[in-house]
Amino acid sequence: MAKVLIAQGGGPTAVINQSMVGAVLESRKFNNVELVYGAFHGVRGIVDEEFLDLTQETTHNLEMVANTPSSALGSTRDKPDLKYCQEIFKVLQAHEINYFFYIGGNDSSDTVRIVSEEARKANYPLRSVHIPKTIDNDLVENDHTPGFPSAARFVAQAFIGANLDNNALPGIYLAVVMGRHAGFLTAASALGKKFPDDGPHLIYLPERVFDVDKFLADVKATMDRYGRCVIAVSEGIHDADGVPIAVKLAKDVEKDAHGNVQLSGTGALADMLCDEIRTKLGVKRVRGDTFGYVQRSFIGCVSDVDQREAREVGEKAVQYAMWGDSDGSVVIDRTGFYSVDYRLAPLELVAGKTKVMPDEFISESGTDVTDAFRLYLRPLLGSGMPDAYRLRQNLVSKVLGG
Amino acid sequence: MAKVLIAQGGGPTAVINQSMVGAVLESRKFNNVELVYGAFHGVRGIVDEEFLDLTQETTHNLEMVANTPSSALGSTRDKPDLKYCQEIFKVLQAHEINYFFYIGGNDSSDTVRIVSEEARKANYPLRSVHIPKTIDNDLVENDHTPGFPSAARFVAQAFIGANLDNNALPGIYLAVVMGRHAGFLTAASALGKKFPDDGPHLIYLPERVFDVDKFLADVKATMDRYGRCVIAVSEGIHDADGVPIAVKLAKDVEKDAHGNVQLSGTGALADMLCDEIRTKLGVKRVRGDTFGYVQRSFIGCVSDVDQREAREVGEKAVQYAMWGDSDGSVVIDRTGFYSVDYRLAPLELVAGKTKVMPDEFISESGTDVTDAFRLYLRPLLGSGMPDAYRLRQNLVSKVLGG
Repeated sequence: MAKVLIAQGGGPTAVINQSMVGAVLESRKFNNVELVYGAFHGVRGIVDEEFLDLTQETTHNLEMVANTPSSALGSTRDKPDLKYCQEIFKVLQAHEINYFFYIGGNDSSDTVRIVSEEARKANYPLRSVHIPKTIDNDLVENDHTPGFPSAARFVAQAFIGANLDNNALPGIYLAVVMGRHAGFLTAASALGKKFPDDGPHLIYLPERVFDVDKFLADVKATMDRYGRCVIAVSEGIHDADGVPIAVKLAKDVEKDAHGNVQLSGTGALADMLCDEIRTKLGVKRVRGDTFGYVQRSFIGCVSDVDQREAREVGEKAVQYAMWGDSDGSVVIDRTGFYSVDYRLAPLELVAGKTKVMPDEFISESGTDVTDAFRLYLRPLLGSGMPDAYRLRQNLVSKVLGG
Repeated sequence: MAKVLIAQGGGPTAVINQSMVGAVLESRKFNNVELVYGAFHGVRGIVDEEFLDLTQETTHNLEMVANTPSSALGSTRDKPDLKYCQEIFKVLQAHEINYFFYIGGNDSSDTVRIVSEEARKANYPLRSVHIPKTIDNDLVENDHTPGFPSAARFVAQAFIGANLDNNALPGIYLAVVMGRHAGFLTAASALGKKFPDDGPHLIYLPERVFDVDKFLADVKATMDRYGRCVIAVSEGIHDADGVPIAVKLAKDVEKDAHGNVQLSGTGALADMLCDEIRTKLGVKRVRGDTFGYVQRSFIGCVSDVDQREAREVGEKAVQYAMWGDSDGSVVIDRTGFYSVDYRLAPLELVAGKTKVMPDEFISESGTDVTDAFRLYLRPLLGSGMPDAYRLRQNLVSKVLGG
């Protein structure tokens, strides 16, 4: 009889519980599976031996949890090194775990890679499979990653509203979107455009160097043309030397355990860019928002395509481990317009690597996306996307004025 | 034959176009109405004679616009004084307008009051009706105001997600919510609570004095109890002298045309409160969001109750003006659990006044709401509110550890 352990790592997404529930329910279908455990707070819960018995969980409640955003098992920002992974492996052995599924981004896939390696060296019968998840959409090999489509939908919907708001009360509106190295989520703001003069009029991605003077010139040109300006900015924008713009201006820089600078959970970047516009361009009505945590955890704004795929990568992980008897990382391939298929890639191919937006998705100006990106993203947003409408401009002749 | 003029003022809401379309379609039903105009950008568009002929607009497109957030006619922050209102009246006369409907908050109702007075003094046949709208829910006489329920729903849904996120990656999460004088929208965060230990654990309203030391003690007590803390803060929190906390800490304070301090479109208050917690309590993981403009314009998060009522106040305004031949402000009365009725109140009763949360809605601690408030708000949020679920805590015994 076999034991299964499932854990969730990194930042929560709107559909990460779909993957967890997919893996739990699929595992429970296999006759040789006796127990299905969940680790509290990712790898931290494994080394602390904090496990939930998910075998006792009702299918009904699992389905309810699947539709709930954020990691139901809890998560962690711990990034295990070799020693940490050896601790993990020790606990897996002690609890006689045979199947280890870890849902997470590229840091998590690296953990799975090391644990898999440790088990192989110890000749211990363990199958370890990484299940992809990240709103940043920055996993290599994958066409896209579960969690990204729902976050992208939130960003697109937020910009539809922001553009309408800015159209009603003209001025400059700027919003900072998550994405440290990859601009996919910021670029999703472009999917909020419908009419030709709709915003976001300018999109700044970490894939391009950010120059403050160029930025101000772009904003001024947009104001001259439309009398208003809506701007999407990635939290990861940086100068030619790779220094994040947020860091250049923040006095106190907090770093997380991965050595990464804290870019989320502060409105500093938006406020600083707004200040630049106010002082240098002399525009009065400048407003800056930072979408922050809302964009990855908001309940009630989810892509049904994302839900379905997140469920399936969880199910496929179990099938690859049990039928295929292989370790690896589950990967999403796009096969049509719009259809996908799954495969298991070697962990070394995915672990610790970062994908960024390809050049063909970014316009020549560097401040917009291409139709290729629209074609790429639109099907991921799912069904029932809300749509904005306008009054037609049937003008009335003036009586008094010129 | 009569001419109708409709305008939208102040901050946009998710349902302000329902009221506009309600007034347009109802006006078009009256045989004596020849033309229905809409003013671009509120009272600013009136004095500039910038009118759209809404008589030519298709019913179909009006219905599509009704479901689109933000002011389709555009808005303005202009707060007309007597001279400005005399300009408005001059234009209304020049265009032979007989019915003037202005959708807005308490500033807008004051404009309607003055214009109504000018017409009366000039013995000019004008009916002027104010149609209520504000996400702040701060209009007197009204049980609640259109726009508030949908913004409240956004805030509640955002806090459901923020609480789940904070539960997955424990620490301190703080979000600043709109509402200068009235805490209704911030208090709506409490409707995101389901399980007994759910956040927001602390809610700070402008109806109570904000004391930084008390705040830090509250946060510490919550951390000691739950190991995490989710906080909702109104942008309008102030000290015992009435000085906004945001002002106490902001170096450069921007004022809008009403002489109001800019509290939205900046993350300064959230960042400052987070810094206080980090330095004084020594907690590392502190994150602050500012919901900003997203909360009033987000597309795809609307209360169907709000939509219906916003439509009806627009329709009723026309009926009161045409059948009732009266000026006034349309008011929502609650008549059951849950049902409403409408009446026309004298403009002097509503104009320029601000309603705040009654004491019975605020807990004795000052940092939570009461069941009376939950009972008040829940039906307004409408149908299909998303719900969060958890895994049950079936713990597995440790093998290695204590």
